[in-house]
Amino acid sequence: MNSKRRWIGVSVVLALLFALGIRTGLHAKLGNATTQDARQTDRAAIATALRDQQEAWNRGDVDAFLTGYWHSPELTFSGSSGVSRGWDGVLARYKKNYPDRATMGHLDFSDLEYRFLGPDAALVLGRWHLQRDPVKGGGDIGGVFSLVWQRFPEGWKIIHDHTSAVNK
Amino acid sequence: MNSKRRWIGVSVVLALLFALGIRTGLHAKLGNATTQDARQTDRAAIATALRDQQEAWNRGDVDAFLTGYWHSPELTFSGSSGVSRGWDGVLARYKKNYPDRATMGHLDFSDLEYRFLGPDAALVLGRWHLQRDPVKGGGDIGGVFSLVWQRFPEGWKIIHDHTSAVNK
Repeated sequence: MNSKRRWIGVSVVLALLFALGIRTGLHAKLGNATTQDARQTDRAAIATALRDQQEAWNRGDVDAFLTGYWHSPELTFSGSSGVSRGWDGVLARYKKNYPDRATMGHLDFSDLEYRFLGPDAALVLGRWHLQRDPVKGGGDIGGVFSLVWQRFPEGWKIIHDHTSAVNK
Repeated sequence: MNSKRRWIGVSVVLALLFALGIRTGLHAKLGNATTQDARQTDRAAIATALRDQQEAWNRGDVDAFLTGYWHSPELTFSGSSGVSRGWDGVLARYKKNYPDRATMGHLDFSDLEYRFLGPDAALVLGRWHLQRDPVKGGGDIGGVFSLVWQRFPEGWKIIHDHTSAVNK
């Protein structure tokens, strides 16, 4: 091995270390800005999922409404009848409590609040209101919900829903 | 610079890279084990905080019960009267709804489920039951709760509580 070759070797190694240092430094410096941008994107994705849920509900499509939830046996829903478990269990609960268009009524979400709990998890608080026919649908009801979201390769999904009525 | 010096330089650089590689590799390999150990510790810390809450409640000390919550104006509690905000707001709500020992009764948490949402956040589901005098305390009540915990320098604290009654 001659002296020139050795110098090339040393230069390549130093260049790699330098590049690694720059990357690490830049990452730390840009961390806050990129986090804020990413959260804007995540917030928008969750807001879209919630809008899709409202629209699905309001055309009477409970199956499409359920696509906002994690399709897993570990999905949980806490409500007035306790804890429902699994995607199938949550679907069954919705179909039992809202058997027809009249009981489903017209759904509105409001007062949404987003709180990120890490890079891949979020808590969303909000209010729900069902406008329903007093006779056929059982009248208006509403309350509050707490949704825990997690990021999956296929997007953000609700992994836990706690929904309850508010006494007026 | 002589040839020997150059070789020392190259060797030092290569040794550093090698060490860096080993560290990264070990970190990846040990990642699961250390995460599991950390989660056991976190789970135990949260379980202790919940046991402390029960004990504080059952000796009638609502202020001590509140130390399980994040001492912040951003703390939220969703329940039958909507969303209460801030540590002071949550304390006021408890004192209003449970003005004396009879209405406080004897509190039990059960069926606790822990789910970690990242290194510094957790979701805990469970059931609550208040054993109360039928006349003086208003009788037994109970239901389900969803607690969102976050790790702070002072330990794990509840940053959001959604508690509701279960119809029997």
